[in-house]
Amino acid sequence: MENFEFSVPTNLVFGKEAHKKIGSLVKEYGAKKVLLHYGSGSVKKSGVYDDVVKSLQDAGLEYCELGGVKPNPRLALVYEGIALAINEGVDFVLAVGGGSAIDSAKGIAVGALEETDIWDHYQYKKEVTKILPVGVILTIPAAGSETSTSSVVTDEANERKDSMEGQLLRPVLSIINPELFFTLPKNQIANGVADMMSHIFERYFTNTKSTDLTDALAEATLKVIMKNAPIAYENPQDYNAWAQLGHSGSMAHTGILGLGRSQEWSCHPIEHELSASYDVAHGAGLAAITPAWMEYVYKSNVPMFTQFAANVMGVEGSFRDPDAFILEGIRKLRAFFNSLGLPATLSQMGIGEDKLELMAKRATGEAFGKERPLGNIKPLYWQDVLNIFKMIK
Amino acid sequence: MENFEFSVPTNLVFGKEAHKKIGSLVKEYGAKKVLLHYGSGSVKKSGVYDDVVKSLQDAGLEYCELGGVKPNPRLALVYEGIALAINEGVDFVLAVGGGSAIDSAKGIAVGALEETDIWDHYQYKKEVTKILPVGVILTIPAAGSETSTSSVVTDEANERKDSMEGQLLRPVLSIINPELFFTLPKNQIANGVADMMSHIFERYFTNTKSTDLTDALAEATLKVIMKNAPIAYENPQDYNAWAQLGHSGSMAHTGILGLGRSQEWSCHPIEHELSASYDVAHGAGLAAITPAWMEYVYKSNVPMFTQFAANVMGVEGSFRDPDAFILEGIRKLRAFFNSLGLPATLSQMGIGEDKLELMAKRATGEAFGKERPLGNIKPLYWQDVLNIFKMIK
Repeated sequence: MENFEFSVPTNLVFGKEAHKKIGSLVKEYGAKKVLLHYGSGSVKKSGVYDDVVKSLQDAGLEYCELGGVKPNPRLALVYEGIALAINEGVDFVLAVGGGSAIDSAKGIAVGALEETDIWDHYQYKKEVTKILPVGVILTIPAAGSETSTSSVVTDEANERKDSMEGQLLRPVLSIINPELFFTLPKNQIANGVADMMSHIFERYFTNTKSTDLTDALAEATLKVIMKNAPIAYENPQDYNAWAQLGHSGSMAHTGILGLGRSQEWSCHPIEHELSASYDVAHGAGLAAITPAWMEYVYKSNVPMFTQFAANVMGVEGSFRDPDAFILEGIRKLRAFFNSLGLPATLSQMGIGEDKLELMAKRATGEAFGKERPLGNIKPLYWQDVLNIFKMIK
Repeated sequence: MENFEFSVPTNLVFGKEAHKKIGSLVKEYGAKKVLLHYGSGSVKKSGVYDDVVKSLQDAGLEYCELGGVKPNPRLALVYEGIALAINEGVDFVLAVGGGSAIDSAKGIAVGALEETDIWDHYQYKKEVTKILPVGVILTIPAAGSETSTSSVVTDEANERKDSMEGQLLRPVLSIINPELFFTLPKNQIANGVADMMSHIFERYFTNTKSTDLTDALAEATLKVIMKNAPIAYENPQDYNAWAQLGHSGSMAHTGILGLGRSQEWSCHPIEHELSASYDVAHGAGLAAITPAWMEYVYKSNVPMFTQFAANVMGVEGSFRDPDAFILEGIRKLRAFFNSLGLPATLSQMGIGEDKLELMAKRATGEAFGKERPLGNIKPLYWQDVLNIFKMIK
């Protein structure tokens, strides 16, 4: 086990009707003027928008708003939000939505206070030293951004998707009311499940030894997600299934499941190239890439992948053919994703072969003249990423 | 699943040598004068005391000190610490020790700022509104007080052990260096294991339905503890086993494992009467009481105890005789405690029969004229507590 330093100061408020308390909760942070940030009209159609505005007004808070966040949130809107936040004297940014609205809100909250251009924070990983408090009302359990230390934004013009990291990027407040998930379309349910599972996989697969507790917690959370996802997928009004998924999705990205161990984080940057170039849903891209990545790297750590097959995917029987045992685990994972209608190939997402090499070179930095291999189980250079793409073309 | 609100702002600093950074870490909280609070001479013998003092001095911090914390920490010493903290103008209380030193430090930190007599906070549960920041260097993994919201103190003169609760009681900083556990005597190892397991049991056993994630996380943590405890017990120099136990013990009492569910909390107050009257070790008392409590209440929630027997204790075979299945799980738990030299009866702890009824009546409040039954699985009145005592007399 490795040394670590960790805290999760985010106040998680979980349960029925929880979002209707947003006004008084935000007030606890001394806020006077809130920037309400959201995506499409779905929050208006569902009534969440009205609930939130009423609660803010009841608490005597001023607010301004910026809608229009798209999946794979755009840098251009972040700039717009920063200008708005500064002009309006906003002192709290409230995201109402899923990972895209939250990540966009984090970008705005940093950009409103930092002097540096916000894209430099994403691209050059310039440290975040100042941020307006960010609150979240979660409407899609997926990205885990409601408790995480990161934000991912896309520079559409340049086909770049990049991430910013830092303890300050944790929201101060996150509200999870599973009732808000009842109206999600099936593809968003599935994408969300793939995304939260990937946040655990990226932490779970490690070459660090003696990590019993985080192994067991990660396996437990993955199994809870795999048990409840089909229930919510079949019956999106199932509160209990959504409660487990909402809670698990947040747990998946707090960092708790990755303490004291080297982490992988290769499938995420690989997938980011798909999203940046083809605007595919992040979760869908991860569902296709993850099993292929497993097949590509498992020989570098057979015990870890045997444990995965047994403890997460429930493979039973003889361990004497480790390859067969592990491949059965990966097959079961792919079948699980398939049962939720998630893609297994690039062509299923409309991605052809023409940009594969470019995307592989961008993923590792080779395209920008400074390659650093991805991942830990087996360091991946651009040729490896290309090989993985070709496995699922 | 029930609604909840939750955060763990405690900064957990985990790993080898971690305690040697204490000076610079404490300084991050703006501290100028630290009250160093510890127990017996063991922190001096082990060299931890010298490491801490050096680190505080290197960071340019002033400090004063108060040693002498005993197991089942005493109210009298808390009063002494409060006076010292006020007189010396202390602005940070640093506990170096296990649960007793930490709980005593929390009492001092509250008492130094609150006007109310500190014992009123314990006895009448007066809300804590002010507290000096508390830091911890953990030397015994057991009580979980390094991340918890509670403090338990004993009024020796009146044989009362009472607890104070509140989000403010979480330490701001907790340092866990598993190397500091290498010199623990076997009985303290065993007591600690029983204590951390009880913190999970008190949350795990519930009548709340649809709690998949917290069930699974609790089961995972319990199994990690039961795997690693015998290793550390046999070889107290095993870093990896201690790392798992240290991490699990903190996880056990953050609250994460009890979110969204009714909780039990009956064995703890019952045991507190043993500690208050006979000064037995808290963990030892819990090891004796817990299996008896299970036998006494399991019929009130057979599915929950069946799940415990299967998922925690690894009982296999036919479920068609649920009583036999559950009793086998309890037998295995008792055997586990026994393998660590923990007691199964009151007489093994030198407790006779003369005070059983008084302790039972104190546990439920009957002795003070206002009985409120303990627990949730099956509400326990003083006659029930007496029955449990008699099962293990």
